[in-house]
Amino acid sequence: MAADIDILVSEVGPRDGLQSIKPILPLDAKKAWILAEAAAGVREIEVGSFVPASVLPQLADTAEVVAFARTIPDLEVAVLAPNARGAENAIKAGAHKITLPLSVSESHSLANLKRTHDQVIDEATRIAQMIRELPEDKRPHFEGSLSTAFGCTIEGQIPHTQIARLAERLKKAGCDEIGISDTTGYADPLAVRQMVKLVRAAVGDEAVTGIHLHNTRGLGLANVVAGLEEGLTTFDASLGGLGGCPFAPGASGNIVTEDLVFMLEAMGLKTGIDVDKLCQVRNILKSHLPDEPLYGFVPDAGVPKGFIPATPVSEVSA
Amino acid sequence: MAADIDILVSEVGPRDGLQSIKPILPLDAKKAWILAEAAAGVREIEVGSFVPASVLPQLADTAEVVAFARTIPDLEVAVLAPNARGAENAIKAGAHKITLPLSVSESHSLANLKRTHDQVIDEATRIAQMIRELPEDKRPHFEGSLSTAFGCTIEGQIPHTQIARLAERLKKAGCDEIGISDTTGYADPLAVRQMVKLVRAAVGDEAVTGIHLHNTRGLGLANVVAGLEEGLTTFDASLGGLGGCPFAPGASGNIVTEDLVFMLEAMGLKTGIDVDKLCQVRNILKSHLPDEPLYGFVPDAGVPKGFIPATPVSEVSA
Repeated sequence: MAADIDILVSEVGPRDGLQSIKPILPLDAKKAWILAEAAAGVREIEVGSFVPASVLPQLADTAEVVAFARTIPDLEVAVLAPNARGAENAIKAGAHKITLPLSVSESHSLANLKRTHDQVIDEATRIAQMIRELPEDKRPHFEGSLSTAFGCTIEGQIPHTQIARLAERLKKAGCDEIGISDTTGYADPLAVRQMVKLVRAAVGDEAVTGIHLHNTRGLGLANVVAGLEEGLTTFDASLGGLGGCPFAPGASGNIVTEDLVFMLEAMGLKTGIDVDKLCQVRNILKSHLPDEPLYGFVPDAGVPKGFIPATPVSEVSA
Repeated sequence: MAADIDILVSEVGPRDGLQSIKPILPLDAKKAWILAEAAAGVREIEVGSFVPASVLPQLADTAEVVAFARTIPDLEVAVLAPNARGAENAIKAGAHKITLPLSVSESHSLANLKRTHDQVIDEATRIAQMIRELPEDKRPHFEGSLSTAFGCTIEGQIPHTQIARLAERLKKAGCDEIGISDTTGYADPLAVRQMVKLVRAAVGDEAVTGIHLHNTRGLGLANVVAGLEEGLTTFDASLGGLGGCPFAPGASGNIVTEDLVFMLEAMGLKTGIDVDKLCQVRNILKSHLPDEPLYGFVPDAGVPKGFIPATPVSEVSA
């Protein structure tokens, strides 16, 4: 993380948001979105996922998006890869960070990735091997992310011993970092604190820095507060909470980047991001995805009168 | 607070929610609402406000609502009173708790209550005097509530020395308890922690137990987490977040009771409330106020698979 910020807000809308909606955002609009967020001060963006176009046509142009995003100075270009083949493509495209999800619920892993835990760990081992064979300055950061860490819609709560064991196995397979992901929006602030402690005990404090939260039950930012208290420094979020589940509008998307940035800056934590500029980026989504609802409170309410952000405007996108 | 719960969730919808919307909820519907919430386990309800009917016709039947609510076993019946005359009526009606708001922003106090700080403190003194003259077992609990504590739309941030001084004066005037109120939705988790410390330093720890939060910028539950960490035990909330500001739907109401109760119960904190039963109470509002949007995530998303609340169902509304 850059030395001039306290908290890294990682924008995942171009991946998690876009994969959750039906319309396909044109490549040029993706580029405009990513460029505008970077100009608002966002330092890391998950720009896509290396999955077959037949599975997620919304993200079929991920290689081109990565190539473009790499041209933006000081932007960490992150991608998802569900397996070694995806990671190979991510490396070819030049991604700075690769995240491999491992669903701690084996039923969910089979339903979602069509792989057992052992098979996903094998993929992790192969990806780490590929990365080790690269010249040191070309190696992407490799994260293994524990999906459904707070429970799964098939199995409910997953035993903590199983989660700890899978975290250890991912680390041993060669992941630099172990992420925690509330895929189902089951987390609460106490559970977040317990989970961070659990995974850190399994793989070491320095390997656990971030969390991926959904706002399914409205607890997203409350869970961020719990994460902050445990010393986490990276939080995923999606502009406008794009991709909220249509069955319950607003109920199922990622936490909203605009609200997250406002909260952190109000708490005196520098994100490097200008919240007003960030809110304006919504216009790109509004014009290209007119039928997709965008969420968030700060874009409507504005910042409080006399609000002083932690990040001085002069330092944005420095 | 009852010994069998950890956190008191105080429902303020019948007062703060209803005063924020145009339609007038009929008396019978108010009674049904209050009765159904009490049956879901809610222990305290702010049922109305003793203001002239010309100012708030929505709450003109507050005396009758109080009389009804008092017949419900174990329910703490709270009301707002903007002055001594209102408090006199509240005492006559038999309210268990009276809250006098004092806006720490004098401009807001003049605009809202048409009174200077000195005048509001005078009203507090007169109310405390009236209460002292009652037989000991008839005395209502008397709260002075610091409105716009986190900033005001006219003055912005209010100096902390001014807030501390006003808290002291309310306590000295005879308030049993000093409440903190984020009238404008300006609070953030750090500000909540600082404000609780500030007011407690001014009036003593035991006089500060609760907070009234709005969800204007989506930080409501995050602010609750901060309040919990400071040891607060009472949180106001409104069913369905009734009364969200129409200029920005969902942006300005109280925090949502259903989501608050879910969060607390998920964190292992007993509220005495059954979240499913609570969500069903929304039907009363939906049928009588069909044009008012109701907010909240848990009512749409449901509780997680395998969810075990802190309050066993057998203990609800015991």
